[in-house]
Amino acid sequence: EKILVINCGSSSLKYTFYDTADESRTVRGKVERIGISGTRLRQQGAGGEIERQLSTAGFPEAFEAMVAELTSHGAGVIHGAGDVSVVAHRVVHGGEKFTEGTLITEDVLADIEALNSLAPLHNPVNVAGIREMRRLFPAAPHIAVFDTAFHHTLPAFAYLYGLSYEYYEKHAIRRYGFHGTSHQYVSLRTAQFLNRRPNELRLVCCHLGNGSSVCAIDHGRSMDTSMGFTPAEGLIMGTRCGDIDAGVIAFLERNEHLTATQTEDLLNRKSGLLGLSGISSDMREVQQAAEEGNPRALVALKAYCYRVRKYIGAYAASMGGMDAVVFTGGIGQGSAAVRAIALQGLDCMGVVLDRQRNREADGFGDVQRISTDDSPVNVLVVPADEERMMAREALRTLSRSYLTQAITAR
Amino acid sequence: EKILVINCGSSSLKYTFYDTADESRTVRGKVERIGISGTRLRQQGAGGEIERQLSTAGFPEAFEAMVAELTSHGAGVIHGAGDVSVVAHRVVHGGEKFTEGTLITEDVLADIEALNSLAPLHNPVNVAGIREMRRLFPAAPHIAVFDTAFHHTLPAFAYLYGLSYEYYEKHAIRRYGFHGTSHQYVSLRTAQFLNRRPNELRLVCCHLGNGSSVCAIDHGRSMDTSMGFTPAEGLIMGTRCGDIDAGVIAFLERNEHLTATQTEDLLNRKSGLLGLSGISSDMREVQQAAEEGNPRALVALKAYCYRVRKYIGAYAASMGGMDAVVFTGGIGQGSAAVRAIALQGLDCMGVVLDRQRNREADGFGDVQRISTDDSPVNVLVVPADEERMMAREALRTLSRSYLTQAITAR
Ligand SMILES: Nc1ncnc2c1ncn2[C@@H]1O[C@H](COP(=O)(O)OP(=O)(O)O)[C@@H](O)[C@H]1O
Ligand SMILES: Nc1ncnc2c1ncn2[C@@H]1O[C@H](COP(=O)(O)OP(=O)(O)O)[C@@H](O)[C@H]1O
Repeated sequence: EKILVINCGSSSLKYTFYDTADESRTVRGKVERIGISGTRLRQQGAGGEIERQLSTAGFPEAFEAMVAELTSHGAGVIHGAGDVSVVAHRVVHGGEKFTEGTLITEDVLADIEALNSLAPLHNPVNVAGIREMRRLFPAAPHIAVFDTAFHHTLPAFAYLYGLSYEYYEKHAIRRYGFHGTSHQYVSLRTAQFLNRRPNELRLVCCHLGNGSSVCAIDHGRSMDTSMGFTPAEGLIMGTRCGDIDAGVIAFLERNEHLTATQTEDLLNRKSGLLGLSGISSDMREVQQAAEEGNPRALVALKAYCYRVRKYIGAYAASMGGMDAVVFTGGIGQGSAAVRAIALQGLDCMGVVLDRQRNREADGFGDVQRISTDDSPVNVLVVPADEERMMAREALRTLSRSYLTQAITAR
Repeated sequence: EKILVINCGSSSLKYTFYDTADESRTVRGKVERIGISGTRLRQQGAGGEIERQLSTAGFPEAFEAMVAELTSHGAGVIHGAGDVSVVAHRVVHGGEKFTEGTLITEDVLADIEALNSLAPLHNPVNVAGIREMRRLFPAAPHIAVFDTAFHHTLPAFAYLYGLSYEYYEKHAIRRYGFHGTSHQYVSLRTAQFLNRRPNELRLVCCHLGNGSSVCAIDHGRSMDTSMGFTPAEGLIMGTRCGDIDAGVIAFLERNEHLTATQTEDLLNRKSGLLGLSGISSDMREVQQAAEEGNPRALVALKAYCYRVRKYIGAYAASMGGMDAVVFTGGIGQGSAAVRAIALQGLDCMGVVLDRQRNREADGFGDVQRISTDDSPVNVLVVPADEERMMAREALRTLSRSYLTQAITAR
């Protein structure tokens, strides 16, 4: 099968191409700065590395540039649009409606659009991308894979806020959680590495990237996660604040005359590592500055790790224990310091870190165990690969929907 | 010493009188529904139980009614205002300025008033009460005891939100924590019961009342607590929501056209147990309804307990382990069901509940141990007594300030 995986952000398009018959034909590409000056495409894989400046800069042009590279003579991996057997689209919010990958029809698109008010920053962009791709690849089935779907197993006592129940009924205000595809992938990879079945394990999975979240995966099912109604709750992130007293927002309204929407923008774009450190949203730079003695960078680093530690403890309590703690994402894979500080003191819960393994782990290669051999709780570093999980989910959805069609046709 | 402890709420005045020479002369009283119809005074202690309706209903009249009962022939415990050796006042917010009990002067009152924007619902009421009491008891020293003071030991990585640091510098936005006097009292009582020194213990203290909070007390010092910038963060409470995604507030602004201040009101008065259950803010009634099979009451109960459990796990992680979990407050003392559900699965952290001891514990008498004899972590029920702690703190402040005066005078 030839699978194309699409991930549209507000100003970027990431794509990955897999040929299930030949791993060496995998291609990963990204168009950045869409809609702003300096739009460029980068791609690596099959035909080597490519970097190209694009003059005109909208999403349609970005998609066309992608198709041009995928079909180009020499470096190309497909002859034309008709060659692709399935397109998988990342959709951020699936609400309570979408609990698994879904074959996209006009009705499904309308249902996704109906969720726009829950994810005003994300879903409209995803929908536009889907429409564009269906135009370019009219013959292929398109599958939506939702960031929220993996968390549909949260019990009500974990997904309800301490809010009037009417707001849940009327507006569907609840914890949804995001990063689901990544958490699911990592949990499967972990089970494989440990030679166990996913439904035998209690995992705390820490996805630490620009966006960061922790997930309690109890016997294969997400039972709680730190992102909530929006992706701004939970951990401190690159530019997002994570957990905060709601009273702060009313305070800023009264004292700085900000609306809640303005404060939301602040909490999403100017907070987190960037806001605390005053230096950067990029953990590498924050860590560098902390090592050089910058006090705000140091407190940002400590606060970041402390929040991770509290969630690990909370989720161990949620599940009545844990078999493994797993780190993934750029920070989770790249920063031995973050992992070590986050795990400080957790020997009380059976976590014994092997300092040397941790220091030496190359988080971007194979799965690595960084706990000692006799640590009751395994600690692993697992490289993130949402795209691969999306490709798998797309194939699974497809065969399920063919099966349904076959049964219905009889 | 004759100590009068004052706790002014928005529509209530609680007072407690202690005579250190004679415990039997302790008097506890409350004036309720101040400023609204049906104002009444109730008092118990020395002279038996008293209940009195008051016709006019402001705070000055409430204080006068209190003085009348305390000095009345027969039931009275003092001859007149001059008889009281010290008055202790509960003040909700001490900001970063007040880290311990403080002798009240005009300067101190001005400093407390300067904190009004941090605690608009509470501090103005406290200040008005202090002014009134100083008029009625002009000869006595007046001491302010702050709800926030015990938490002044929080490290920066625990008290900073993932917010731009400028908001901390400019507006002092940070986690303050409340219920400090109660947490401190309970931690001292726990140490005494366990025959240990407070600075040898790591405690997770769950104060579960109408307002609820959890506190991690690490070797005698508060190192983290669930209430934050305001008392609305953290646990689900009677009518307060506790932890919630800040994005919900922006959503309500956009979709229900509420301002952040209106939402704040909603999150403080119509949420929590009341909002979730739709029945009551009173845990007894929620529990009753849950037992009778009401599904919303059941999910409210479960969500309440689950949140407590997560905080216990988080704070065990914060401190690198815990020696005891302590329950206090009306719910913590009264509800064996809440304690049992909150502790479910925590044997992974060394908590072994003795179900019978838990069921049979009378939380309103002596300190009770409800863990098994060989549980690595002690679980205790400790009756709350903020008033006694305030009285102690007032005496300590007084002797400290006499000492300072004596030294300065030399
Ligand atoms: N070796 C490293 N050490 C510390 N941080 C790293 C390292 N490599 C990447 N990071 C951090 O990872 C973050 C980006 O994570 P990533 O998962 O790539 O982001 P996204 O959430 O956008 O997918 C950045 O903060 C970056 O600084
Ligand atoms: N026996 C009991 N069982 C369950 N809940 C109880 C019991 N006794 C008191 N409560 C609950 O305690 C709460 C009041 O706690 P309290 O500490 O008195 O409040 P406050 O925070 O106002 O001081 C109420 O929700 C009440 O229902």
